[in-house]
Amino acid sequence: MDRLALALDLGGTKLDAALVSSEGEVLAASRNRRPTGPAVTPADLDTAIAETVSHALSRLPEGAEFAGVGIGSAGPIDLVAGSIHPVNMPAARGFEIVASAERSAAAVLGRSDFPVRLRHDGGCLALAESWIGAAAGSRASLSIVVSTGVGGGIVVEGTPIGGASGNAGHLGQTVIGDVTLEQIASGPSSVRWAQQQGWSGSTGEDLARGAAAGDSVARAAIERSAQHVGIGLANASTLLDLEVIAISGGFSRVADDYVELVSAALRDAAVLPYARATRVVRSALGDEGPLVGAAALVLR
Amino acid sequence: MDRLALALDLGGTKLDAALVSSEGEVLAASRNRRPTGPAVTPADLDTAIAETVSHALSRLPEGAEFAGVGIGSAGPIDLVAGSIHPVNMPAARGFEIVASAERSAAAVLGRSDFPVRLRHDGGCLALAESWIGAAAGSRASLSIVVSTGVGGGIVVEGTPIGGASGNAGHLGQTVIGDVTLEQIASGPSSVRWAQQQGWSGSTGEDLARGAAAGDSVARAAIERSAQHVGIGLANASTLLDLEVIAISGGFSRVADDYVELVSAALRDAAVLPYARATRVVRSALGDEGPLVGAAALVLR
Repeated sequence: MDRLALALDLGGTKLDAALVSSEGEVLAASRNRRPTGPAVTPADLDTAIAETVSHALSRLPEGAEFAGVGIGSAGPIDLVAGSIHPVNMPAARGFEIVASAERSAAAVLGRSDFPVRLRHDGGCLALAESWIGAAAGSRASLSIVVSTGVGGGIVVEGTPIGGASGNAGHLGQTVIGDVTLEQIASGPSSVRWAQQQGWSGSTGEDLARGAAAGDSVARAAIERSAQHVGIGLANASTLLDLEVIAISGGFSRVADDYVELVSAALRDAAVLPYARATRVVRSALGDEGPLVGAAALVLR
Repeated sequence: MDRLALALDLGGTKLDAALVSSEGEVLAASRNRRPTGPAVTPADLDTAIAETVSHALSRLPEGAEFAGVGIGSAGPIDLVAGSIHPVNMPAARGFEIVASAERSAAAVLGRSDFPVRLRHDGGCLALAESWIGAAAGSRASLSIVVSTGVGGGIVVEGTPIGGASGNAGHLGQTVIGDVTLEQIASGPSSVRWAQQQGWSGSTGEDLARGAAAGDSVARAAIERSAQHVGIGLANASTLLDLEVIAISGGFSRVADDYVELVSAALRDAAVLPYARATRVVRSALGDEGPLVGAAALVLR
């Protein structure tokens, strides 16, 4: 009989829930979603969790072993208190998501003898990448998302590195010069920089099209992003001795060679041979990566 | 009956060996040392290890349980191959220290059923600090040495983080602006900077005396070092969610408030609340820290 976990993925726009198998497969019929947003309150989230958990668990096959609940959430989180303090959902700060999920699952299952584990979404993504993605089999990996923000997570010897409060991996808030990596290299930051150079587009997609069509400012904005991500990753690799870095996120697809540009920048910036040897690769996860990673918190 | 480990600490000037108890105490009679140096060869090191191991193990009490051999070495190392590639002993690069130590111990003990574990010296120091030092009881810590270089190691949940090849923790080779942290903030780098500003001293001790006597350039050189160490640590804490950072090394004693200056710089540079909350403290280890940390590789 298969082991199954209930996975929750809470982000700034939606809450996803699904059952995930011990092979990392999402049970399609169990997957369901509620909208969130910047104004969402703890009470709203509690209701959304109760509804999505109830739906997902109703699809638990007869006789299947229930491994527990894994939760990925927008950060920062407080691993010790089991609560979240998401920057992009300010009204929900302090929400005790672990207790909420445990209560909802226990109400359906009629028992509460299962683990409930929480990590920030970057940590879950990294766990999925090291389990079934581009970092599988590696001893130490960092997986990052380059999108409207720059986030990530760290996995060493199969274990997600949470740190003191569960927030390890926030690469975007490391500092390069006087600003954060995210303030230089995210999609919106790159668009803003291009506009300051006189470019007339307004989105990451515009940058991609412009660069592909030969616009030198659009291309420079993309190279500038990759350059700084590479510097941030060189420091991460020097500090953590990473074997693989996996890159995902909408802005990482802004150019076909974005990952290669990042890799070259890392090698330029890194001083020690082991850091220069880190492989930088494109993510091998699909849309279900965050749910799979949350499930891995209790399945692995 | 007590468990004892054989600890080796190999640095650029000497090799130390001793037995260490499961309480972290070095058996004084077992401790012995051979000189090393930049010209030392693999054959020299093999001989020095055989001699020091033989002496230390001759003091193994009757009936004591032997836990294995823990080795701390100047880095970089290759954890997978069990070899070392020390920057400061170029002629010894590639030396298979794990096999050498295992052979020497097996020759004395008449058996080879014990673990032999290797980490770089910064990793061992961090393990000692988290075991019996200033980071004891913390969920995630980084311990650094500020001296002629800047090195360190990471411990999460009691486990030393080695990374892909065992080199995690090399904070001094992370980059700030165009140069490494070590090139800005080490003792010799700080002395050089002060000299460029017209200061006439020539050592870290001179800087300490000058600053204490009110020399503004000497004081500025110390503040500049602490400022940059703090920036590097802010990035490390953002990436790793550290609870405690312990600082040791000769140059960290250049001013009574050096650790406080570093702590203030970290809080200025860190963006996220969990990173600003990291405690920065002075090391609580004595001279035996590296041996104790090496022993912890097999005792803990």
